[in-house]
Amino acid sequence: MATKFDGVDAPYSAEDSLPWLPFSPHSELVTVKLYAVDPARGEVVMLLRAPPGAELPSRRLTGTTTIYTMQGRWKYREHDWVSGPGSVVLEPAGARHTPTILADGTDDTILFIVTVGDLQLLDADGQVVGTENWHSALERYLAYCRDNDIVPRDLTRLSDSSSPDRVSLTI
Amino acid sequence: MATKFDGVDAPYSAEDSLPWLPFSPHSELVTVKLYAVDPARGEVVMLLRAPPGAELPSRRLTGTTTIYTMQGRWKYREHDWVSGPGSVVLEPAGARHTPTILADGTDDTILFIVTVGDLQLLDADGQVVGTENWHSALERYLAYCRDNDIVPRDLTRLSDSSSPDRVSLTI
Amino acid sequence: MATKFDGVDAPYSAEDSLPWLPFSPHSELVTVKLYAVDPARGEVVMLLRAPPGAELPSRRLTGTTTIYTMQGRWKYREHDWVSGPGSVVLEPAGARHTPTILADGTDDTILFIVTVGDLQLLDADGQVVGTENWHSALERYLAYCRDNDIVPRDLTRLSDSSSPDRVSLTI
Amino acid sequence: MATKFDGVDAPYSAEDSLPWLPFSPHSELVTVKLYAVDPARGEVVMLLRAPPGAELPSRRLTGTTTIYTMQGRWKYREHDWVSGPGSVVLEPAGARHTPTILADGTDDTILFIVTVGDLQLLDADGQVVGTENWHSALERYLAYCRDNDIVPRDLTRLSDSSSPDRVSLTI
Repeated sequence: MATKFDGVDAPYSAEDSLPWLPFSPHSELVTVKLYAVDPARGEVVMLLRAPPGAELPSRRLTGTTTIYTMQGRWKYREHDWVSGPGSVVLEPAGARHTPTILADGTDDTILFIVTVGDLQLLDADGQVVGTENWHSALERYLAYCRDNDIVPRDLTRLSDSSSPDRVSLTI
Repeated sequence: MATKFDGVDAPYSAEDSLPWLPFSPHSELVTVKLYAVDPARGEVVMLLRAPPGAELPSRRLTGTTTIYTMQGRWKYREHDWVSGPGSVVLEPAGARHTPTILADGTDDTILFIVTVGDLQLLDADGQVVGTENWHSALERYLAYCRDNDIVPRDLTRLSDSSSPDRVSLTI
Repeated sequence: MATKFDGVDAPYSAEDSLPWLPFSPHSELVTVKLYAVDPARGEVVMLLRAPPGAELPSRRLTGTTTIYTMQGRWKYREHDWVSGPGSVVLEPAGARHTPTILADGTDDTILFIVTVGDLQLLDADGQVVGTENWHSALERYLAYCRDNDIVPRDLTRLSDSSSPDRVSLTI
Repeated sequence: MATKFDGVDAPYSAEDSLPWLPFSPHSELVTVKLYAVDPARGEVVMLLRAPPGAELPSRRLTGTTTIYTMQGRWKYREHDWVSGPGSVVLEPAGARHTPTILADGTDDTILFIVTVGDLQLLDADGQVVGTENWHSALERYLAYCRDNDIVPRDLTRLSDSSSPDRVSLTI
């Protein structure tokens, strides 16, 4: 008589064993670890790791972003404040910035990032020269798994926790 | 070589043929038409229809709500403004109100509602006496379909547009 | 001794008196009525009105979109289904479509739309030739008010319901 | 001639200097660091710190929750998996769980949490005995500041980044 909705109480849990992926083609110094994507809403949950002094391209976000700094020190070229370990940065939709990893440290900067929508990479004239989102993030992960003989996990599980094999891989 | 993510470009479309459901046990005068629920985020997309003079229980919302008034006139007992056809009401998380359908009209009031989280029904002392959310909304729809020999549609499709039969009915 | 958070219980209410704005430069046949924008999240709440037979540009959405059809009949060129009065369409982030208003009706099509993020207008080759979002929507509204000697309302109130004059106009 | 929307490009940045607050009345062993709340959407951004072996009350979430484990090891009594450093847990709306900090470690467990809506604390019979949300979180922070002669920061800034003093304190 009861109606059962599988997975309602089953949280998605992603272990630390997921691989660090080169953030190609944007940077070979920067790596990212993808935990989860939500194809319906366009959300991406990830870590980003960059060495001291690394320059990241200017970018504009179409949605909101939450950044927790776990390690290292970084700033936006456009602002004075520096974000260090234990700091939180919240960005509104439409924000444009140029992230810079401070060169004075020895530790890599590691950021935990939850972002929604497109991240548009901009050239010096502010033109969009690349786009990152849940789709490109998942492609990068699947390509890495394929190239390294890793069986990919389904990183879309929150939007359908009942079906572990929802992503159809036609690689 | 391409990776395919089924359903990314396939919007969810719910036709007008969905049934009007009595909003029991809260009111027999009020009916609702459920279009879609998102179990992951707790979102509900619905119409609510109530006759002139209807009193609805006081309620508190744990999430945001967007209301478009298609027909009729209503207000919150706690506020002076009246919402009529073509008006929009946006409610922040945590809002408490008592909706009242104005008695001076002849048309039913019809509201298009997008809401997230729990709607807590309150008694005169402000105690929670009932809870509505995506789960109770879907139960009401499935019970109505069962009682009326209607084959239920999957109203959760946006969270998994690739699998039309994701909700497992163990009625 | 109490701490007061102004506006928590004060919903935002936008009346029907808001103006219909030509959807320039994209179309002179299409008009929009802007109800509210949320600059933090990039949300836009609006009506869109288009005559029978109108062609709208192809577009890609970076966020989710909810569409309720109040009047008229329309479809996406890429799909077979037709959306008529009382239908709901939910689109995932990243969806690309070409909306077409059916030519067989006499009523304008009127859509209630809640959208998040950028709407990218595409040319025949899929290149982005224009972008709509909360910012451009608010600019359009403010320009219309200025040209027609209307005192603009603050349509950003949900993100700060305590301060009715938060948008600083330096026109 | 330009229209200026203050704060669009100004991200919210919360430094590490925010205080650790006892999670009273729920636990004296657990402390939380509140970074930001969004009164409109009901979002809370925080750290939670608990010693090995700590038991937290069972709770139900009305909205989604994202948890990043920075340090320590913990689990839900209802599930087999253990979350350790670098793990991510995503919970759907409506999830009920009993968090338990493993007793076998020496480090405190530290979790970075982004949550939306109400967190309902449950007794052994599943009855709601307490509620946590953006409002109670902000009250706890402001009470701590008052008791310790700290000038409170405005932790609601993302919803109105142009006005640093939006929260009106009438303590």
